[in-house]
Amino acid sequence: MATIKAVTEVSELPICIDSSVMEALEAALAAYEGKALVNSVTAEDERMDRILPLVKKHGAAVIGMANDETGISMVPEERLAIARRIVERASDYGIPKEDVIIDPIAMTVAADPTCGLITLETMRLIRDQLGNNMTCGASNVSFGLPDRATVNAAFLPLAMHAGLTCAITNPLVPEVRRAVLAGDLLLGHDEYAMRWIASYRADLAQASAQ
Amino acid sequence: MATIKAVTEVSELPICIDSSVMEALEAALAAYEGKALVNSVTAEDERMDRILPLVKKHGAAVIGMANDETGISMVPEERLAIARRIVERASDYGIPKEDVIIDPIAMTVAADPTCGLITLETMRLIRDQLGNNMTCGASNVSFGLPDRATVNAAFLPLAMHAGLTCAITNPLVPEVRRAVLAGDLLLGHDEYAMRWIASYRADLAQASAQ
Repeated sequence: MATIKAVTEVSELPICIDSSVMEALEAALAAYEGKALVNSVTAEDERMDRILPLVKKHGAAVIGMANDETGISMVPEERLAIARRIVERASDYGIPKEDVIIDPIAMTVAADPTCGLITLETMRLIRDQLGNNMTCGASNVSFGLPDRATVNAAFLPLAMHAGLTCAITNPLVPEVRRAVLAGDLLLGHDEYAMRWIASYRADLAQASAQ
Repeated sequence: MATIKAVTEVSELPICIDSSVMEALEAALAAYEGKALVNSVTAEDERMDRILPLVKKHGAAVIGMANDETGISMVPEERLAIARRIVERASDYGIPKEDVIIDPIAMTVAADPTCGLITLETMRLIRDQLGNNMTCGASNVSFGLPDRATVNAAFLPLAMHAGLTCAITNPLVPEVRRAVLAGDLLLGHDEYAMRWIASYRADLAQASAQ
């Protein structure tokens, strides 16, 4: 509770609450006066039936991880089915679809070269068949590799094209910020390149001021 | 003919011959002793029926542009249909499918924000329904914009994922080279990141040698 109050004193941005301790999660939700985002619930029955009622009670949103008690599937259709179970259970508890954000799960391509394609295909399936908003730890794809910024920058436009609506990433990394702007530009979200050009000019102005 | 001989004296790489003058194209194909790539033929009957017999006669390959006498369509399915006409006409002249490389046509997003998505969707359709190899002037997407290298770098993994097999681009631009390597890594073409790591080490070695 003290943490929630400390954060809300310095920022008006919505808070994402991440705790595996149910009592901490409940206390944080009770203390927070805004609409929180709970990170996260998996498709395990015991987790869903403890967390989702809390989410509903406090009018929060929740991130649903596309895995269950059997672990993380490497089959996109199975991750989709797991995500669907969370969306449906949330609906049973009265949580609207727009408050359930699915995490299709990104893992490093250093360990398994198919990880990137599996995540992208899972995103495409969730976008086309569920339509929920999605988030994911985008920089997970480059874990253990050198020059992670460049790998993450290449992944973000791919993920945006596949349906990712909000990455968990560091917007202060220049390569990441520019990759998102370039992705918006290439995918039809930046008419006449207005934001791309404005960002370029702002970078130039900042560089010449230093 | 003198040009072809001058180039073959200094490089053993295959040559791409680009001329809209039929006599020059014919002379170049006759002078070249390797397997040439002819850039390009459109789906206009008059062009196909002049260029394709030459391609067949000299055992060359040819780039087929997905446009015809009506211009460049902004409908991916129409570009696919135009590409299919070229593949079929080439087949009528005895040119095998692997010698017909389709250019799905990339245009700048500075003029029309839908250009990127149209090109990517055209690529996906050609890959799924024709299966021909594809090339395109990838840096066209950023024409007229600042920081083209970053836009081109973001586009290449998207295009690779959509089915592009070979971009016309400048591999000496570091952002472009690294984007292609990162695309290979993320799309399952670089097992255990061996090439990504080797390239990183080579860059480090080159930097420390300077």
